[in-house]
Amino acid sequence: MTLHMYDLAGAEPERRFSPYCWRIRLALAHKKLAVETIPWRFTEKAEIAASGQIFVPVLVDGDRWIADSWIIANYLEDTFPAAPSLFGGIAGRSLTRFYSSFADSLVGAIFPFIAIDILNHLADQDRDYFRATREKRVGTTLEALVADRERKLTAFRASLTPLRNVLKAQPFLGGTQPLYADYAIFGPFQWARCISPFALLEPADPIRLWRDRLLDVFGGLARAAPAYDA
Amino acid sequence: MTLHMYDLAGAEPERRFSPYCWRIRLALAHKKLAVETIPWRFTEKAEIAASGQIFVPVLVDGDRWIADSWIIANYLEDTFPAAPSLFGGIAGRSLTRFYSSFADSLVGAIFPFIAIDILNHLADQDRDYFRATREKRVGTTLEALVADRERKLTAFRASLTPLRNVLKAQPFLGGTQPLYADYAIFGPFQWARCISPFALLEPADPIRLWRDRLLDVFGGLARAAPAYDA
Repeated sequence: MTLHMYDLAGAEPERRFSPYCWRIRLALAHKKLAVETIPWRFTEKAEIAASGQIFVPVLVDGDRWIADSWIIANYLEDTFPAAPSLFGGIAGRSLTRFYSSFADSLVGAIFPFIAIDILNHLADQDRDYFRATREKRVGTTLEALVADRERKLTAFRASLTPLRNVLKAQPFLGGTQPLYADYAIFGPFQWARCISPFALLEPADPIRLWRDRLLDVFGGLARAAPAYDA
Repeated sequence: MTLHMYDLAGAEPERRFSPYCWRIRLALAHKKLAVETIPWRFTEKAEIAASGQIFVPVLVDGDRWIADSWIIANYLEDTFPAAPSLFGGIAGRSLTRFYSSFADSLVGAIFPFIAIDILNHLADQDRDYFRATREKRVGTTLEALVADRERKLTAFRASLTPLRNVLKAQPFLGGTQPLYADYAIFGPFQWARCISPFALLEPADPIRLWRDRLLDVFGGLARAAPAYDA
């Protein structure tokens, strides 16, 4: 049975940009699973109500609805054990949770650089919802948040030193081949790439080079998506 | 043959506080290996010259001298493969490198809170060296750095959110039992605990509770060391 995934989209249905959905797109490809994605907007909560969640990704496998990227990744690992492992074993699964959590914090760290670009890509129906929820969260307007972004860039790049040092020493976080840890942290960078022309990383940054390697895996799945390549 | 490890000490030889040495003390215990530690001061570079390094930990295994905590951990894993694994497999080893790198950044993040307490614990011979090298690195006096520490505490604790969220969900970073990933990140917290009365973490913080669990492993090895318990 074909899997379906609700996938955050902009005004253009093919503009898919959720950092959490991208993790699962690559996890599905890693597991060699076909998926039909369903474009979904922030305000279409009713469409995914069966999942018990109001956010995507939501995976639909027959009559099962699974929400939350970490839970979905574990579901894929347990339901398709014969396919290549996302975690590399029992210890690997436990060790991967920190990558997932660290990636969540990266979403917050990257948001001030791309907030206005997200708004500009949204379907009309989502714009008021997005602005209201996000401005409440950050305590300022999206315009004011982004106006300051050049000044914040040096500190942001410096904050990535622990990640950078790993990627100087090995091609992927998972070693010689990518694992879910890679997809989790790739998500926020692909989010930014799909929605914003702003260059978060310098061209020669080992993190940028790793990101580019991940654009090429699975037949260039992530590279084929509508995106900017600043 | 008994292993030996050069281990950073303060004025009191039993005051062992290096975050990097603590990683390896616990890694050795995890591997069920006995070790004789040799108290070493920052200025005793000549004593470890055979390692090719000027920092501890340095492990001496017969005629082999091994420096750098990550290299030592890998040496122990490869040299004693029948003992419990530090990494939990091939993928686990690759996935552990980020923990080691993240722990290094934690040393930098914690330093402003404990710098003066380190100075106050050092042997006389080390004090000028420590002050000169560290003040050059941070661009201010140790006193000025620490004077500001209460103001920095909220941001420091907030920066640990990704780690905290993992430790709300599982007892150790390695899962139900600790792995080298745990020891790597425990190191900076044990460093602070051994040298400073300053309370970096709130008593109910899941990170503090995890730290306390690691004080109890291996017969309370880390708890037995001279330390503060603020």
